[in-house]
Amino acid sequence: MEIEEKKDLASSWFRNLRDQFCKEFETLDGSKFERTKWNHSGSGGGEISLMKGNVFEKVGVNISTVSGEFKEDYRSNVSGTEDSAEYWASGLSIVAHMNSPFVPAFHFNTRFIVTGKSWFGGGADMTPTYIYNDDTEDFHNSLKDACDKYDKNYYPDFKKNCAEYFFLPHRGEERGVGGIFFDHLTTDNWETDFSFVRDVGLSFFKIVPHIINKRKDDNWTVEEKNKQLLKRGRYVEFNLLWDRGTQFGIKTGGNTDAILMSMPPDARWE
Amino acid sequence: MEIEEKKDLASSWFRNLRDQFCKEFETLDGSKFERTKWNHSGSGGGEISLMKGNVFEKVGVNISTVSGEFKEDYRSNVSGTEDSAEYWASGLSIVAHMNSPFVPAFHFNTRFIVTGKSWFGGGADMTPTYIYNDDTEDFHNSLKDACDKYDKNYYPDFKKNCAEYFFLPHRGEERGVGGIFFDHLTTDNWETDFSFVRDVGLSFFKIVPHIINKRKDDNWTVEEKNKQLLKRGRYVEFNLLWDRGTQFGIKTGGNTDAILMSMPPDARWE
Repeated sequence: MEIEEKKDLASSWFRNLRDQFCKEFETLDGSKFERTKWNHSGSGGGEISLMKGNVFEKVGVNISTVSGEFKEDYRSNVSGTEDSAEYWASGLSIVAHMNSPFVPAFHFNTRFIVTGKSWFGGGADMTPTYIYNDDTEDFHNSLKDACDKYDKNYYPDFKKNCAEYFFLPHRGEERGVGGIFFDHLTTDNWETDFSFVRDVGLSFFKIVPHIINKRKDDNWTVEEKNKQLLKRGRYVEFNLLWDRGTQFGIKTGGNTDAILMSMPPDARWE
Repeated sequence: MEIEEKKDLASSWFRNLRDQFCKEFETLDGSKFERTKWNHSGSGGGEISLMKGNVFEKVGVNISTVSGEFKEDYRSNVSGTEDSAEYWASGLSIVAHMNSPFVPAFHFNTRFIVTGKSWFGGGADMTPTYIYNDDTEDFHNSLKDACDKYDKNYYPDFKKNCAEYFFLPHRGEERGVGGIFFDHLTTDNWETDFSFVRDVGLSFFKIVPHIINKRKDDNWTVEEKNKQLLKRGRYVEFNLLWDRGTQFGIKTGGNTDAILMSMPPDARWE
């Protein structure tokens, strides 16, 4: 398959999945997303869908398809840039901060990158304020099922990546209860890789409403909400201090609104 | 004067000024500070004074006197480390987040650093949600008076440093309305430098209650408080994404509570 066809298939899928998520979340919440387009400093751009609702205190869904040339000082950090600094990237990101302190925050990301090489990256993780083992198990099992269909090493490897990545060294704690995280995924069969990426997206699509529905209507106290706000403070610390994507995006002139869509609506520090 | 005597004088002054500030803020607020000591990974440590009051929604005052050896990969970034990686540092930091959206947030820092060389650093700046020109003028004039007694270039130079330093490139905006910021201050007269540093501290000590008292009792609406919370979101973004002291401290195993004392009690993102 030609690379242009792969680009089309991947970016179309991200858009399609975006539409599925927005529709599902609107139904679940009873509110509506608002959409804002943005332009990339190179070519292309993206679209942020933002909903502030009843179940979702703030959920952002961003799709983007961008291209350009890496600056010389960054180029050597990226695979496949030996012969050319050109890049193309398309992806979908979701960050959901929930109203109820009993419902976890969710994060999902999936992308297809093309330089001299091409690969998929992405992941999904969950950040509860109150940890319920059944939620954690359901979330992990759902991702495991998607992984195991393709390679028995995927789940343990990607789960380990996730735990290592979403870690706050200055607090000595993980951001949440983990999930999966993968990058530079490229086997000799692009169709299979693409199928895996789609299945991860669909697993997340299925499991998130299931976990949300379990406890979204339970009553909570001011103290419980306070604990959620403090947990969100940690979320902010991770994203601004340690998240490589955020640091890279912010410091290379990326779209601020798209990058900081991940910020919670409110956060608190003691 | 021997360097050990300078260290004693500087660290004693920082502690003395800390006591003055805490007493003044307690009187102004009607609440009490709580103090927590912490240890440095090398030698020494510090003490955080924290008050959550009526006028001050959250104010932190940290003093520290620490010493140790810079790691090899960082050593070359610091002046006076050609012959030895040893450092000694003492300082005072104040960050005040106010209850009223009409009263600015205040930040003050002063420090004395000793490596193979020795110097003072510090500064003071103000971050209003609603900008009142009389507050801005009073604040700047107070700092200008302290500077002008020593060197007519200090105020314009240090004001420029401050505007350049407290800037959010990803937002294209300054953190607040500025103030002064200086580093590597060392003339051929240590006593004069030390006197300047004390005068900057005392100017800040005098002007802050003056500005607080002007509008602390004015009524504000939920919309006005919301605007303050959004402004605090920007404050968090600056401190975690761009502040060199925060990045250095967090990534070299500094005391997290002392470094993140600067975080506002609550912050919001749209």
